[in-house]
Amino acid sequence: MSEADPSTPKERRLAPPTISRLSEYLIILEELGESGREVVSSRDLAALYGNNASQVRQDLCCLGHTGRVGQGYRVRELERMIRATLGIDTIKKMVLVGCGRLGTTLAVHVPMAHYGMELVGAFDVSPQMIGTRLGPVRVQSAQNIRDFCAKHGVELAVLTVPKTAAQDVSDALVAGGVRGILNYTRVRLRVPAGVAVKNRQIVCSFLQLFHATTSQPA
Amino acid sequence: MSEADPSTPKERRLAPPTISRLSEYLIILEELGESGREVVSSRDLAALYGNNASQVRQDLCCLGHTGRVGQGYRVRELERMIRATLGIDTIKKMVLVGCGRLGTTLAVHVPMAHYGMELVGAFDVSPQMIGTRLGPVRVQSAQNIRDFCAKHGVELAVLTVPKTAAQDVSDALVAGGVRGILNYTRVRLRVPAGVAVKNRQIVCSFLQLFHATTSQPA
Repeated sequence: MSEADPSTPKERRLAPPTISRLSEYLIILEELGESGREVVSSRDLAALYGNNASQVRQDLCCLGHTGRVGQGYRVRELERMIRATLGIDTIKKMVLVGCGRLGTTLAVHVPMAHYGMELVGAFDVSPQMIGTRLGPVRVQSAQNIRDFCAKHGVELAVLTVPKTAAQDVSDALVAGGVRGILNYTRVRLRVPAGVAVKNRQIVCSFLQLFHATTSQPA
Repeated sequence: MSEADPSTPKERRLAPPTISRLSEYLIILEELGESGREVVSSRDLAALYGNNASQVRQDLCCLGHTGRVGQGYRVRELERMIRATLGIDTIKKMVLVGCGRLGTTLAVHVPMAHYGMELVGAFDVSPQMIGTRLGPVRVQSAQNIRDFCAKHGVELAVLTVPKTAAQDVSDALVAGGVRGILNYTRVRLRVPAGVAVKNRQIVCSFLQLFHATTSQPA
């Protein structure tokens, strides 16, 4: 963990909904930047995100960026400020536990390295998986989790194991020093204070879509 | 689309954050129900979700469920009410466009049928994929999207195509009558009014985790 001055943007704690929106603004800004766009207004960004300009301006104020009246925001500058606020201009080591279909897809699909995350280890219990290559790493036995994380200073973990294994794996990760777990299982993990768990149920996105089309005015 | 009385819970429009929480409560309640739990308090549910009891009570009020003072909620009853509110006690047809790694993982990983979604079609442009079996369906050429959706009354689609193809595929889906798109591409789709798009960037979950561990007090 960084010991930097808590008054720097990186160390300020923002509310999860703000962080969620900043993350999405970043993806939008990257797309805009790649297409050659240099400046974006709060109104354009709001239209692309799907909220309103005053919300965008309020969120960007959290970065200490007040924009320039009538001139909009510089795309690349805003991108850099969001990256700094999220903290992803530093690198954190990450492991994947559970190398089934979902785990391997996440490892391959998500450009972790671009966002400050280095996949340094992957674990499974299946003899068929152990020893196989997954992106930059080789899959190891789940028995190694605690020692490996402690030895390599791993801070983050992605959990895609069967639910019966989830709490034990979580305990091993925490014992190895992991401070943040992205939990794709249905289990509500018990972790000590100071460890962050983000529960992600992919099906929830499907449910939200379903409801959006049910209550849409005809 | 249902033409039911707009005053029924199913047709009431709830804010996306409420829907998001209700979806998660449903997953938690299903887990509790499977483990034999019959009653849950707003405080227990809040602890499992990670918010507070008054937020839970307020959300459940949206279902028209006021609970019974000091007695908690019946797990199965609450489950049924959330399902009705989300609309998933009806069935909607869904297609998947883009049968690469992410698309096939979603098709296999998400128990759509349990949540009111029937996967009736899958599309890709790759000759290697076309004709192969994906869960209950065979992958078809993306050229068939519009006609297939119109013929079968498809309402929902999941989009996991390369970004260069995203807008064209979205146009074909909408022309075929699709009313809701779960968009896993980085493209901000242009769709007519009355069509819902939910943008899902898996990487955003990773960014939220990253920030949670950065700003965690030491």
